[in-house]
Formats: sequence, structure tokens, C-alpha cells
Amino acid sequence: MPAELRLTQARAPLTQQVRVLDEFGAERSITIPAERALTVFVDRRELVTLMTLGASPELLVLGYLRNQRLVDAVADVESITVDWDVHAAAVRTRRGIAHFERKTAKRVVTTGCGQGTMFGDLMSELDTLKLPAASDPAARISQSALYGLLSAVRVQESTYKSAGSVHGCALFRQHEMLTFVEDVGRHNAIDTIAGWMWLNGIEGGDKIFYTTGRLTSEMVLKSAQMGVPIVVSRSGITQMGHELATRLGLTLFGRATNRHFICYSGFDRFDAEPEPVRGA
Amino acid sequence: MPAELRLTQARAPLTQQVRVLDEFGAERSITIPAERALTVFVDRRELVTLMTLGASPELLVLGYLRNQRLVDAVADVESITVDWDVHAAAVRTRRGIAHFERKTAKRVVTTGCGQGTMFGDLMSELDTLKLPAASDPAARISQSALYGLLSAVRVQESTYKSAGSVHGCALFRQHEMLTFVEDVGRHNAIDTIAGWMWLNGIEGGDKIFYTTGRLTSEMVLKSAQMGVPIVVSRSGITQMGHELATRLGLTLFGRATNRHFICYSGFDRFDAEPEPVRGA
Repeated sequence: MPAELRLTQARAPLTQQVRVLDEFGAERSITIPAERALTVFVDRRELVTLMTLGASPELLVLGYLRNQRLVDAVADVESITVDWDVHAAAVRTRRGIAHFERKTAKRVVTTGCGQGTMFGDLMSELDTLKLPAASDPAARISQSALYGLLSAVRVQESTYKSAGSVHGCALFRQHEMLTFVEDVGRHNAIDTIAGWMWLNGIEGGDKIFYTTGRLTSEMVLKSAQMGVPIVVSRSGITQMGHELATRLGLTLFGRATNRHFICYSGFDRFDAEPEPVRGA
Repeated sequence: MPAELRLTQARAPLTQQVRVLDEFGAERSITIPAERALTVFVDRRELVTLMTLGASPELLVLGYLRNQRLVDAVADVESITVDWDVHAAAVRTRRGIAHFERKTAKRVVTTGCGQGTMFGDLMSELDTLKLPAASDPAARISQSALYGLLSAVRVQESTYKSAGSVHGCALFRQHEMLTFVEDVGRHNAIDTIAGWMWLNGIEGGDKIFYTTGRLTSEMVLKSAQMGVPIVVSRSGITQMGHELATRLGLTLFGRATNRHFICYSGFDRFDAEPEPVRGA
């Protein structure tokens, strides 16, 4: 039995009211999403400052450590203590982080929105990433299961519905939503799901990622890194996202809402049940 | 007269065709935006890899150096040579970059989408940022000028219209569009405009930024850093974006399309010409 991982359950308001002026000249109150800085310390060393909505800061930090490959296994983490009063997350590891300097220096080479961090490292490990075969029934999706998934997203209560301006991300087994996360940055949302999977010992091979964000190279890489073979997005795709998914055999659906979607890659995991063409 | 800055004019296709499958079971071709890695070397030292659409790589690199505060003045840069065959941008400076190690190390402390880089540094320099007074007529906007600006954005030809999945950013003087930039990452688009302003000796005090991206803390900070007092966005806002704009006296409009908008902050720069309320 693995040693216990101790996590706080720090909570803070997810929305805020502000006064605005509209096109009719009316002043009124609207709701906007919270956004707060969370500085992560690992064994008392400052690592990074994340800007987050703040819904699940402990899982965000855990997933960040995982996706940055700073920690190899959840059992290596002893505790994560988040204190919003000082905007800090204190991580204690059981054995320290090997090659801390080298691992954190690497991040300097990648930057900016659209790819986030870790790109260089992951690219060099592409060929080590292994997804389940397309013939594995658990690693496939049918058109009706895809519609069921989109339906579950649509009815999900969310900060987005009340305040806008956040990205949502969810993990599914077929059309069953296992967890749903929102954050001001989509990378944070994905990292939080990675943390949740680690904490609960959930494998990715029979899972599906849903994201409101675009299908960029980093989204594809992070999904493959977690072993998840199918990604569904409300948004579109970029060329690198497409290339990587094709190379990895990952199935991508974009522009997906209601009964509309585009399958960009990995058609072989998809059981099409085509809609009748109107007028045909 | 400043010494000449030599820039290549590297060009590469901005879109690509891919085969997709839709909900009707039909395979067809669609257009997606290009996305390519550009590794920046400064005086032969590797600095960063940017993922970019590739429309204006030289201006992107120049603006990146500016916004990261690696270079203090455009005259310090001798040449920027982009070669897509090797995905590299070679920057030559006239006198080298002072404190290169310290400046690039700082970036490790900030990360992820929603704030990008530089946050830590900029936050500590907030009080040195100075925007023109709201009483300055050139640093104000009327409701009709705002509508004119949105109209100019609407008719602009763009990669977004043909391929989606890119962010757009533009610089305006009142409703006159001075430059328009698209990129897969919105920070790249802003940085490219920063490079364009530097190259052409354009000041920000009487300008307006338009962005398709959200009004996050970093958007507000970058705008203030370039002296631009008004930002207009098609999207919404986050709490830190709101707080910083309020503190800096920066005017933010969001959810802005056609004749709709919300003014979130800096009402005192705005000359409202309210729409008649229907039914009133």
C-alpha cells in the first residue's frame, strides 16, 4: 500500500462581481472569474508561479509536477499544502527531486501561449509514448458515444456559464464524465486532471479527454503522455497538433458541439454512424 | 540617425490542407493554420523556441526581445536572420545582452497559458508604468470610434477566416487600423506588434490595442508596458486583468463585436454615446 499523500483542501471564491458600463450607457454588475497567483515551493525551493482560478490548487500542483516530469510517481510526494493567505503551495517530497536544476533550466527553452512549457523535452521522447491499439474496443469511440459525451459537457454546471473566460477540461470513459475541471489557463486545467488521475490511480488507455481549448501540439503531447488515445475539442486545430496526432496514432475531434464535429486524425478508432445528409 | 537594423523577410505558407471526416461520414479537405517552431539564438546563444504561425517571424523575435526586456532599445539590435529551413532566428546585437543569465533565469518563475512569461518582473515594475492622462483627447475613445474600430476588424482579411484557430491582434489610432497580426499564440501576436512599433518608432500613448484573446493580466501589463492606454477584446476578462487595469488607469472593453461591448475599467477615457434601449 502506498504511503499516504497529504493534501490540504484550500478553497477560495471562484468568481467576483465587478461594475461595468454597457453599450446602452447602463452601469451594472457582472460576474467574472477569479484569477490568483500560486507560487509553488518544492522542498522549500521556489519553482514556479501559476496563475489559476483556484478550484483545485492541490491537484493542479500535483499534475504540474507530473507533467513537467519533476516527479516520477505520486508516491514520491509526501504533502501539498496550499495557503491562499500567502498565495503559496508548499510541496514536500519523500526523497527530493533528482536533477532539479537541469529539469527546471530546460523550461527556459520553451515559452508562450499555444505550447506552454515542456515542449522540447517531450518532443525528444515522442517515440517512447505508446497508445493502445486502435483495435482495442476500450480505446475506440462511436458517433453516438461522442454525442453522449458532448451532451454531458453541455449540461455540466460551470464557472464558464456564470462568468465566462475560463477553459474547461474533462476526462471521460466513453460518454461517462469522470471529472471536470476549469481554469483560467487551459494548461492548468489539463494539469489538474493529470493530478486527479495520479491521485486516484486512474490509467489513460480507455479514457477520452475533452477540452474547450484548441488542439495544439501541447494538448496532443500531454494527452499522449498520460496514455489517453482520444481528444475531443470545442475548438479547432493547429498544424503541429495535427502532425503529432497523426504520428502518434491519436484520434482528434474538433469543432465538436451538439451533433457536429470534425475528425482530424486517427479515423481508425472511430465508429462512424453517419447523420443522414439533408435533402439527400 | 539610428544605425540600420537588418531583417530578413522569411516567408512560409500560413495554412495547410488536411483530410478530415465529418458527422455525415464524408471525407473532405479543410484548411488549418500552420504552426512551426522557431528557435531564437541571440549572439549564438539559444534563448527560446517559439511556436508560431510564421507570418512575421522577424518582428515577432524583435518584439519578444523587447517584451522580455532583454534589449532596451531597437538600436541595440544589429540584425535578425530567420531561416525556415532550419527553423532558426539568429539575432545579432551590437553590444551583447547585459545580465543574460539573470534575465533568462527569471522566466523560470512564471509559466503557462493565461499569463505567459515575464509576469514576475513586470509586476514589480508596475508603479513605473505611466499612461497618458484620461483628459488627453488622444488617449480617449468615443462609442462611435469604437464601433468604427470593430467594423475595421470585421472586414479585415485573415487566416482566421480561412482556417480558424489563430488569435488576431491589431493596433489602432482611434478607428484607423495601423497594423494587424495573427498567430497561433496570442502572446506572439502582441509581441509582433511590439516589434512593429519599435521598428517604426511608433509610440503607444494615442493608440488602442485590439485582441481576440481574453483580457488577462499579461495582456494588460504588455499594453501598459508599451504605453497603450486602451484595450479592446472580442473575449472576456479575468480578475487579475481587471485589477491591474483599474490600478493602472487602463481602459478595457470586452465582449466587443458589432455594436455590443462591455467597458470593464477606465470609464473616464470613454465618451459614451448610448444606444437607445429597445422598447424604452
